[in-house]
Amino acid sequence: MDLYEILMKRRSVRDFEDKEIPDEIIDKILDAALSAPTGGNIQPISIIVVRGEEAREKLDGILGNQPWVKRAPVSLIFCLDFHRAKRWASTFGTDFSGERAVWHFLIAYADVMCASQNAAVLAESLGLGSVYVGAILSKIDKTRNFFDIPEYVLPMMILSIGYPKTIPKNIPKLERDIMVHKEKYEWRTDEELRAAYENKYGDFDETAEDYLKRAYIEAIEADKQGNLGRVEYIKGQLDKLAIKSNAEFLFKVRYPSEAMVELNEEITGSFRKAGFNF
Amino acid sequence: MDLYEILMKRRSVRDFEDKEIPDEIIDKILDAALSAPTGGNIQPISIIVVRGEEAREKLDGILGNQPWVKRAPVSLIFCLDFHRAKRWASTFGTDFSGERAVWHFLIAYADVMCASQNAAVLAESLGLGSVYVGAILSKIDKTRNFFDIPEYVLPMMILSIGYPKTIPKNIPKLERDIMVHKEKYEWRTDEELRAAYENKYGDFDETAEDYLKRAYIEAIEADKQGNLGRVEYIKGQLDKLAIKSNAEFLFKVRYPSEAMVELNEEITGSFRKAGFNF
Repeated sequence: MDLYEILMKRRSVRDFEDKEIPDEIIDKILDAALSAPTGGNIQPISIIVVRGEEAREKLDGILGNQPWVKRAPVSLIFCLDFHRAKRWASTFGTDFSGERAVWHFLIAYADVMCASQNAAVLAESLGLGSVYVGAILSKIDKTRNFFDIPEYVLPMMILSIGYPKTIPKNIPKLERDIMVHKEKYEWRTDEELRAAYENKYGDFDETAEDYLKRAYIEAIEADKQGNLGRVEYIKGQLDKLAIKSNAEFLFKVRYPSEAMVELNEEITGSFRKAGFNF
Repeated sequence: MDLYEILMKRRSVRDFEDKEIPDEIIDKILDAALSAPTGGNIQPISIIVVRGEEAREKLDGILGNQPWVKRAPVSLIFCLDFHRAKRWASTFGTDFSGERAVWHFLIAYADVMCASQNAAVLAESLGLGSVYVGAILSKIDKTRNFFDIPEYVLPMMILSIGYPKTIPKNIPKLERDIMVHKEKYEWRTDEELRAAYENKYGDFDETAEDYLKRAYIEAIEADKQGNLGRVEYIKGQLDKLAIKSNAEFLFKVRYPSEAMVELNEEITGSFRKAGFNF
């Protein structure tokens, strides 16, 4: 299978076999991650490799509702790391102020994601499956605390990797033409946008289970793996809020707008506690 | 060549043949990008495909000092796009407030980078070369203006792609052991950090040209491609600031700490102008 096929078929896997990944495979994945492009070749990245039972349990406890992190034989915590360069620079009497510079933060986060996507793609090509867990963004303090992460280092993303037990079917996507613009941004009409999303999500008018299978597989997987109650909770919300459209489901049930905004304080507070200030 | 080799050998290419990339190759690259993982399957991404002479010239003018963007037959502007989801939601009387939520911003930017790295990796496997241009982050206003980019959309990264004329030799990297941590963050001593960086960059005590070839290839490439004066300027700075270490070079000459912090206002100002407020 060529790389194009691999990239097109890749789906997040949350259901892993209880099977170790050999060290040499993990090393290859790490090397691929660390060989990703990095702005100015600064390499402001650290990867914490979580394989032990204790750390997996703990990470599961910190994150909540993400049982795949415990089940996956390996989770990689991708950190944005200014501690290393800062300390190195200071031994030469030089200041690296990445923690005060939005520029450095944004480029370093891009580096983090290039590295993690290299890892995800290589894992896929080796017959492994993986899932990103961004929920760590609202658990930065606890993660830093447990994993002994120094100042100026932010755990930004988890990639959990393992041998897939089941792989989700293709999930609905917007078509290329609505996301790609030729030469300039091509504004679409409300009607075109609605049609594009309807094309993606299909009708809302069906049973909750069928809908969730397509539009919120995480809830179903979480239940299957022991977090019972997730699907029931969502179904309750659908009723209670009288959800009647895909858009309402997404931004009232799954990512309720105000609740997402309320996370700001938590996230920026964690940034400040880690010494970031911009 | 298997994917591991491709990822390990990949180097940023800034020197492109004057040769078009066929449409079907570009479409494949775009499809691979759009098939990348995206948090909650929200797909808050737009890609502007820049191929025309006028837009390439303009982009070059906006960025400055990055002649490869004009030379590359294709540049992809990867945008974080909340405009589309927001307008779609509003047609259902629903509010998507990504522009006020740090969470949504951070996850969406991760999505943008997963997409662009998929594009970079596929391009590489097809015999193309590419280079990321993050300098767009300090030119968001001008880019939004020229490319007719709506509110709630931020151009975050450029990937310029073409057939490589020359490919840089391997560039120095930190070794895996200094960037990877087992189970917990492994703190290193100042001496270990210094040794790791010395191992990466080598001695500072050599001719400026030799040093730049290894540590700042962009300056040399920019000169070769017509931005004459870049290398002379850097050499002047090395003398003037009496730079005597790799760390000083990096954070006094190449990314002067205070100058980087001073960009904050520009970048956050652009975010605000695009309707972002968190």
